[in-house]
Amino acid sequence: MSNAAPASYPATPRTTPTRARERARYDHETVHTILDTDYICHLGFVSADGAPVVLPTLYTRVGETLYMHGSTGSRPLRDAAEGLRVCATVTRTDGLVLARSGFHHSINYRSVVAHGTAHRVTDPEEHRTALDAIIDRIVPGRSADCRPATAKELAQTAVLRLGLEEVSAKTRTGGVNDDAEDLDLPHWAGVIPVTRTLGTPIPDPDTPEDLPLPTYLRHLLRS
Amino acid sequence: MSNAAPASYPATPRTTPTRARERARYDHETVHTILDTDYICHLGFVSADGAPVVLPTLYTRVGETLYMHGSTGSRPLRDAAEGLRVCATVTRTDGLVLARSGFHHSINYRSVVAHGTAHRVTDPEEHRTALDAIIDRIVPGRSADCRPATAKELAQTAVLRLGLEEVSAKTRTGGVNDDAEDLDLPHWAGVIPVTRTLGTPIPDPDTPEDLPLPTYLRHLLRS
Repeated sequence: MSNAAPASYPATPRTTPTRARERARYDHETVHTILDTDYICHLGFVSADGAPVVLPTLYTRVGETLYMHGSTGSRPLRDAAEGLRVCATVTRTDGLVLARSGFHHSINYRSVVAHGTAHRVTDPEEHRTALDAIIDRIVPGRSADCRPATAKELAQTAVLRLGLEEVSAKTRTGGVNDDAEDLDLPHWAGVIPVTRTLGTPIPDPDTPEDLPLPTYLRHLLRS
Repeated sequence: MSNAAPASYPATPRTTPTRARERARYDHETVHTILDTDYICHLGFVSADGAPVVLPTLYTRVGETLYMHGSTGSRPLRDAAEGLRVCATVTRTDGLVLARSGFHHSINYRSVVAHGTAHRVTDPEEHRTALDAIIDRIVPGRSADCRPATAKELAQTAVLRLGLEEVSAKTRTGGVNDDAEDLDLPHWAGVIPVTRTLGTPIPDPDTPEDLPLPTYLRHLLRS
């Protein structure tokens, strides 16, 4: 896998009207930051009969490559050795935007949409590295603190590789975009922040009571 | 729109191996509950050149109908009057599952995948009702407390209708699924709950300071 990449992704034409605080971006930092804050992407492909399919899938980013967990039992994913056209989308919700007009109600969000041809990872070392990276996407540092996969387990776990070449980020941030003539209407307007919270860990019944939480996990819960 | 529906959705064949706590379900209650707890679905369709496209989209459920906000500027969505094959997927993440083996790491989640042919809503009353329902999906009760859309605003806002006919829910709940021979390994194992939290409302600068939070919003923030 290669980490070499252009300074920015090539822009694809968009017809979306651009509002003040809603915009498409193609810079690597924005794309990477969004991809590095979630666990699940929505992987779209076209089935043999021509229908679109969208499945939630564990993923991770390594440099300019997206790796997706493909052991869903779905034939197109299993057969992707020769290449499968996909669209992988990651979306985080950041806020509920309550405007005075129904029309301007919205959501603050960050999303990345990546198009391209995905291939099944066949190289054993890349396969293992990608699965470890998917585990570390869930909890950074975790892959070094668990039993490594056996050859049999690896064989049961398909991983798809997608180069981040045709990719864009779209975000909406900030406040309410009401029209000037609506500002005096008597409706409360503003933004309700939406955050994702990690709760108190629930140990497995077989985890010894005196086994402390690993450092990387305590670090994650504090962040 | 019709609320009539069979007692359960028809099952579509699956080849996914069923683990103890991961399963596909087709009952209405499960499907409705998942759809009624999120704001964004991932809408998949096939572009004119045959490529899959997955876009995050505001949505709501009314009875056995999914309505999706389609004013994305995307031509296939604008032209969906005659029917657009889609797959709409909603996923909530509920927990991070840390097993002793890398292989059994997972995510607790709830997802709904709906397939079918979506149509653009053309009936003015259904159009308005659907947009109000999308606002009420964000904050229940809100559509009655904002300025209704004008005819011009309605014309700028496409809504897609998808009947919930070919639909399934898939969930993973519960704890760690480690193999028996791994239970004594010295790695902490358990589940980290993931929840979505609504924060303190941020009033728009033009919202009068003495304007109280509406009752429905206080209710939502307490729930």
